[in-house]
Amino acid sequence: MTNQRLARQLQFILEIDKLKGVLRRSLLLDSRRRENSAEHSWHLAMMALVLAEHANEPVDPLHSLKLVLVHDIVEIDAGDTYAYDPDGHAGKDEREQRAARRIFGLLPADQAQELSELWEEYEGQQTPESRFALALDRLMPLLHNFHTGGVTWRENRVTREQVAERMQPVAISSDALGEAASAVIEQAMTSGLLPSAWPEP
Amino acid sequence: MTNQRLARQLQFILEIDKLKGVLRRSLLLDSRRRENSAEHSWHLAMMALVLAEHANEPVDPLHSLKLVLVHDIVEIDAGDTYAYDPDGHAGKDEREQRAARRIFGLLPADQAQELSELWEEYEGQQTPESRFALALDRLMPLLHNFHTGGVTWRENRVTREQVAERMQPVAISSDALGEAASAVIEQAMTSGLLPSAWPEP
Repeated sequence: MTNQRLARQLQFILEIDKLKGVLRRSLLLDSRRRENSAEHSWHLAMMALVLAEHANEPVDPLHSLKLVLVHDIVEIDAGDTYAYDPDGHAGKDEREQRAARRIFGLLPADQAQELSELWEEYEGQQTPESRFALALDRLMPLLHNFHTGGVTWRENRVTREQVAERMQPVAISSDALGEAASAVIEQAMTSGLLPSAWPEP
Repeated sequence: MTNQRLARQLQFILEIDKLKGVLRRSLLLDSRRRENSAEHSWHLAMMALVLAEHANEPVDPLHSLKLVLVHDIVEIDAGDTYAYDPDGHAGKDEREQRAARRIFGLLPADQAQELSELWEEYEGQQTPESRFALALDRLMPLLHNFHTGGVTWRENRVTREQVAERMQPVAISSDALGEAASAVIEQAMTSGLLPSAWPEP
């Protein structure tokens, strides 16, 4: 290919196909298999499109979309870290930094910088859009877990308090989404899916 | 939930989880399984983000992203129609129209209309963004097929001429992407992956 810039862009596009092979803990709503991070990113982008009006601070829709589309790409090298696994978080930052350098570094320098900055902005949580993106990323697994009978909560002995703490960024970004999350947690508790403590195995 | 508008939006968000179960013909680049339409939509969104500069006509980035994120949602009811299957195209329009009414109709009326219009715009191919989105949707399977050894071409006895015709929208939207597509087709032909005619079985 004579167009070197395009060649680098296409190499990046081919590389990120691998995000489709990174599995999360969440089950699909039909419970047939676990979700991967690429389809999860699409789902968050659709949430960003449909739910933007509920953000407490005005969010730029293009910027929100960019953040959710890019936020998980480092998992290609660094893997998905389960929310309730403290061990998995050791060394996570360094793994992800290295991943960002390698993967975004496939792009032409200006775009490598743009995508790295988007990912860092998401991680830094200092802008309305990054707070909104994180809120969506926290809310979605709550809905998935609740609507698949709480299997991953049970498997990992996750408690109501842990989930409530995990949902704090939702309420920070959006009163309406925060209330929706609380309502789901209450319902999960009432249905016995999410107790305050699991019986000894 | 007291917020009826949000309740409808969340119902839509849960419903479109089903797009993750709609399988396309393309294999993932690691050839381990077929691609689904949700992760494909994410991949196109990343292409829209990275390749926008190559569109012949200027494209609005937010609008392009919306089109690619929404363009396959009707497949939840209507299924994915394989590009080289003439039978599958019979009744496709009506199936998809019905699907759009049901699925987008889950949303509050203003958003149902917005998403229906995005989908119709994509289908209509009358705007720079819809032409760019279609170009990406055609280019990606070419790259997938080429980089997975042309398995789906062989399985479906697809010829070089059929693929070249299928790639016409790529060149219409972008000279640079059209040239890249032609180069891949030439390489596929040279490597014996994509002949002008397949031997009788």
